[in-house]
Amino acid sequence: MSVMEKLLILAPVGSVVALLFAGYLAYTVIKRYDEGPPEVVFIAEAIREGARAYIKRQYSGVALFFAVMAVILLFIAWKGYLTFFTPFAFLTGGFFSGLAGFIGMTMATNSSARTAMAARDSLNKALRVAFAGGAVMGMVVVGLGLLDLSIWYYALNYFYRHLDTATRIQNITSTMLTFGMGASAQALFARVGGGIFTKAADVGADLVGKVEANIPEDDPRNPAVIADNVGDNVGDVAGMGADLYESYVGSIVATAALAVAAGHGVPGVSVPMVMAAVGVLASIIGTFFVRSGENAEQGVLLAALRRGIFASAFMIAVVSFLLVWSALGLEQIGVYFSILAGLIAGVIIGLSTEYFTSGEYHPTRAVANSAITGHATVIISGIATGMISTAIPVVVVGAAVILSFFLSGGATNYNAGLYGVGIAAVGMLSTLGITLATDAYGPIADNAGGIAQMSNQKPIVRKRTDALDALGNTTAATGKGFAIGSAALTALALIAAYRDQLEIIIQRDNLHLLLDFSILNPKILVGLFLGAMLPFFFGSLTMKAVGRAAQKIVLEVRRQFKEIPGLIEGKARANYANAVEICTRAAQIEMIAPALTAILAPLVIGIFLGVEGVAGLLCGAVASGFVLAVMMANSGGTWDNAKKHIEDGAHGGKGSEPHKAAVTGDTVGDPFKDTSGPSLNILIKLMSMVSIVFAAFILHNALF
Amino acid sequence: MSVMEKLLILAPVGSVVALLFAGYLAYTVIKRYDEGPPEVVFIAEAIREGARAYIKRQYSGVALFFAVMAVILLFIAWKGYLTFFTPFAFLTGGFFSGLAGFIGMTMATNSSARTAMAARDSLNKALRVAFAGGAVMGMVVVGLGLLDLSIWYYALNYFYRHLDTATRIQNITSTMLTFGMGASAQALFARVGGGIFTKAADVGADLVGKVEANIPEDDPRNPAVIADNVGDNVGDVAGMGADLYESYVGSIVATAALAVAAGHGVPGVSVPMVMAAVGVLASIIGTFFVRSGENAEQGVLLAALRRGIFASAFMIAVVSFLLVWSALGLEQIGVYFSILAGLIAGVIIGLSTEYFTSGEYHPTRAVANSAITGHATVIISGIATGMISTAIPVVVVGAAVILSFFLSGGATNYNAGLYGVGIAAVGMLSTLGITLATDAYGPIADNAGGIAQMSNQKPIVRKRTDALDALGNTTAATGKGFAIGSAALTALALIAAYRDQLEIIIQRDNLHLLLDFSILNPKILVGLFLGAMLPFFFGSLTMKAVGRAAQKIVLEVRRQFKEIPGLIEGKARANYANAVEICTRAAQIEMIAPALTAILAPLVIGIFLGVEGVAGLLCGAVASGFVLAVMMANSGGTWDNAKKHIEDGAHGGKGSEPHKAAVTGDTVGDPFKDTSGPSLNILIKLMSMVSIVFAAFILHNALF
Repeated sequence: MSVMEKLLILAPVGSVVALLFAGYLAYTVIKRYDEGPPEVVFIAEAIREGARAYIKRQYSGVALFFAVMAVILLFIAWKGYLTFFTPFAFLTGGFFSGLAGFIGMTMATNSSARTAMAARDSLNKALRVAFAGGAVMGMVVVGLGLLDLSIWYYALNYFYRHLDTATRIQNITSTMLTFGMGASAQALFARVGGGIFTKAADVGADLVGKVEANIPEDDPRNPAVIADNVGDNVGDVAGMGADLYESYVGSIVATAALAVAAGHGVPGVSVPMVMAAVGVLASIIGTFFVRSGENAEQGVLLAALRRGIFASAFMIAVVSFLLVWSALGLEQIGVYFSILAGLIAGVIIGLSTEYFTSGEYHPTRAVANSAITGHATVIISGIATGMISTAIPVVVVGAAVILSFFLSGGATNYNAGLYGVGIAAVGMLSTLGITLATDAYGPIADNAGGIAQMSNQKPIVRKRTDALDALGNTTAATGKGFAIGSAALTALALIAAYRDQLEIIIQRDNLHLLLDFSILNPKILVGLFLGAMLPFFFGSLTMKAVGRAAQKIVLEVRRQFKEIPGLIEGKARANYANAVEICTRAAQIEMIAPALTAILAPLVIGIFLGVEGVAGLLCGAVASGFVLAVMMANSGGTWDNAKKHIEDGAHGGKGSEPHKAAVTGDTVGDPFKDTSGPSLNILIKLMSMVSIVFAAFILHNALF
Repeated sequence: MSVMEKLLILAPVGSVVALLFAGYLAYTVIKRYDEGPPEVVFIAEAIREGARAYIKRQYSGVALFFAVMAVILLFIAWKGYLTFFTPFAFLTGGFFSGLAGFIGMTMATNSSARTAMAARDSLNKALRVAFAGGAVMGMVVVGLGLLDLSIWYYALNYFYRHLDTATRIQNITSTMLTFGMGASAQALFARVGGGIFTKAADVGADLVGKVEANIPEDDPRNPAVIADNVGDNVGDVAGMGADLYESYVGSIVATAALAVAAGHGVPGVSVPMVMAAVGVLASIIGTFFVRSGENAEQGVLLAALRRGIFASAFMIAVVSFLLVWSALGLEQIGVYFSILAGLIAGVIIGLSTEYFTSGEYHPTRAVANSAITGHATVIISGIATGMISTAIPVVVVGAAVILSFFLSGGATNYNAGLYGVGIAAVGMLSTLGITLATDAYGPIADNAGGIAQMSNQKPIVRKRTDALDALGNTTAATGKGFAIGSAALTALALIAAYRDQLEIIIQRDNLHLLLDFSILNPKILVGLFLGAMLPFFFGSLTMKAVGRAAQKIVLEVRRQFKEIPGLIEGKARANYANAVEICTRAAQIEMIAPALTAILAPLVIGIFLGVEGVAGLLCGAVASGFVLAVMMANSGGTWDNAKKHIEDGAHGGKGSEPHKAAVTGDTVGDPFKDTSGPSLNILIKLMSMVSIVFAAFILHNALF
């Protein structure tokens, strides 16, 4: 057994450490901090209950879907197009992805009230509670990801022990690739369903509450206010967690699958998994760097969070050098620089997102300025800002691809280059433990603010939670940039793995096919066109879904205001559960069409245009989906913060005409940044996964 | 000389017939119809003067650009990377494209007042004047296009007469390809500059006039009202004309260039040119089908225009069968079906655009509905509608590509397949003479309405011009769909020609290069990403340009209202020329950055990522640009007509809250549909052209 094979034990070890640390954090938060007086607990419990109800409903629907898919996969395996491990790998991928989202969400709903209460004492204390709550999510995602990977790797390694190394590795990685499909499918439902839920509640609550009834945000009289807070948890926490769980395991298995063709053998398979384990430990250490003084301004708070991420990134940069050196030798040290390229690209994308969406910088200020001339100009400038903000992430990811490809020796060994692209994705995602912590922190702070408002806390409490919330907006935006960038890089690695799998299958099944991947092959070209169109189509479906669901909430809120006597005067209690129930039902129905689109598109294209058409489809979807997702996320972010900038007193402040225009921008931005934009991440990854799993089926059954 | 070479004489003949017919139409409109009383002539003259002033300024700026480019091309030719014909071909392309726009625009500004006056007599008379005015534009574009093609073809054929047929054809088509770059560059300035002018004036006039001063649209008290009407002419007429001139000649020369490699020889070169000539004659006959009864409803008027297009398309379908049969023989009759695929695809795209943007159908009604819940929901639903409307055009173009490729024998002869894709583009554009006539008709009717309003005509006149104008909105939308669809197909033909040229150059210059066009070549992939991003970047530049220019108009209109005593009471006359001057200056400055982006992007990518990177760039830009352009055009169209639907009495009608929200949608849609969206057509074509012209230079000078 080589050194690397021994080091591979770090993967399960990292997994266990991450899960233990998550347990420790959860224990401290829950035991050491109090949830406060009964009226606060009541609100927190209502949010928890709503989130649980939603998740329960969602998971039963998804379970049905998984059961059907498992049967289909079993049938296809029986036909000989897949190994019999595939359906089970698919199920575990879905299970762990869902579990990560569930635990993260449960923790988040248990942290918000405690954050609000801690804010009574000090800002630093509140930050620590919220961040610890978010860190649970980060640790659970990476911990469960590594756990799933480790179990399958060791199990398959044992099962295929009689095969020679190359075949064994090939069989292991081919099977492991397929559990990414389970994770993606789960993530799709979590992101799309959660995204529809959260924005239907948000938009619905705002449309009647703020605009018609003229009551402030988070006012307990608004029947949709609990649903709005539930939405933050099911969309931004559970959805985001499942999404990044998928990128995480997807990038690792894709890279591992590329190791064989690249000629890196077992060490090449081990590097991404050990890298991930190193990232877990670095993330844990990084969390200890997150602390701030009292009365800290937003800039200082942000610096505190950043310190944690940068510390982790630095540790990873150092340790992975030693890792690559010992695993692949000094002549392959270029692989290390590929990792570095991914790591740095992730950081730059985060900074670029911050520049375009934070109220501190020119772009968002300009959007706020354009609110002076009304609703239309604020929309135009927000979209224009979102559009131009796509340049840096695309150039950075492009540079990372080129650099990682050539640094890993792609000029002489094409497959080694593709392995480099994969390992760059792993490098970018190696900080996931802590990046996700800063990200999940956002909705916790947001909910804490809502709870403080609903339970009528002292102004200082609300002021502190507001500071945390404003910071949360920035980390949410950068987190989205990171999620999209890593999804694009992961999807590229998956596409490379797809091509690799095609060759393996063609050889294995003795198919006499000469695949033409030329970009001027009309099948590729048409696939590319269709792929470029799909994100727009998908985005439209999800936005329309939010619109329809929000409409239902509007009717329900109006009904309660009319039918519950004394509600508007604050004398009677609204029926929160009804609004939650309506959002839940709407989200469940509305996520069917987008989900089917993502799953069926590569199959239909495959049947009609063959695997070449599918390759074009994937490339087109990744390219245009990446750009559209960045645009939607950043437009939404800049509108949100332009509104906040005006609320902070610019251009007449709250209630002025510019503020109304800015609110329009923010409302348009809501489905952009929290539903359609993030859903595109999954669209591109899930389509790649479906293509890989069904590759043999398509190769044998394509019409042309 | 073969039959086809003899038939080639049809090209110059068609050209002369088109130009004569244009002259005849212009003569009838100007001589037979009166421009009306002095106050009408005054307004018409002001619009003409503004348009002339703009065009004069624009053309002097563009002349400078062309001079610089010609010197650069001469230098590159001197270095041996181009023939010495190229700079001159480039100049003639630009000259004729500009001339087509200029004549079309001059005619349009001479037709609007006459249309308004004819509307005093009858609706049918007004329709005939406006349509004849538009038909001049259509005929001039195809006439000058064929003229330029014919001159160069015969001149080069004579110059290269000593070469063997294959080499001669290759030299001819390679040179002719480069004059497309001149046409594209001119079109870019016309589309972008005109687009910025028209929307800056429109948005600026609306923001102060309608919103602040509360005066209706087209009110003569508004100082920007003439600029607004000028904008329709410089943007929608001259810009559209130059754009489609470019698609027209671009598709023909690209197809001709592909004929050699396809093995179709001289007949293959002749077919697209003779096809175009047939289209000219069919278009002329088609114009005689356009007439309506009195008191015709919009549906009947639309049917009248459609009858003309369908009649032309039918004639082309019949004649081109005979043409392909006699030119290429019955065994190549698949080429005919490729033509048919393009022709039908164009018609379907037009119908799909109409469905998504006309107030008669569900999508636009739904957008109007969403105005009930306010500004934000109308924006969200308009964008969602635009996004989903991309599916049909993309699928239709995709189907046309696949069908034309395989019907022309692409399965056994790759280059013959690509020739099929090119000839499909020619087929789609063969109806251009009459399609463009219905398209240019729109701004004429729009201006006629404005003139009727400004000169206080009787209500019946305004009612008739309104009917014509409403119809113009629909034809403008379908015209845009057609422009985008044909641009995408043309760009694909150009990309195919690009690859062809690369192989010719590599062979000619004895370069030992093995190009790898695999979609998984990281250079291609990164090019693809950058290409997918560019339309967003470009769209942002043009939208921001409109915003800045509109801001200047807002300030000017406010200044005039303040400083000119009696203006707001209607006692003093506004200084229209100043507003025109400001728009002109702003458009000139603002079009520099987008133009440089389009020209430099393929060169910079070429230097860094080689010709493979450029191929990826082009494919990415075409795919994402096509989708984005359709989305922007259709979102804009649906908002425009949703507003009109409300103004017709739905949801409270004019002045209601839903109407205000719909106006916001319309204002956002203005730069979408009239500036950024249409500019993307040129972006994708110009980048392809630049890539072709600089192919040899990049092959010799790429860094990697």
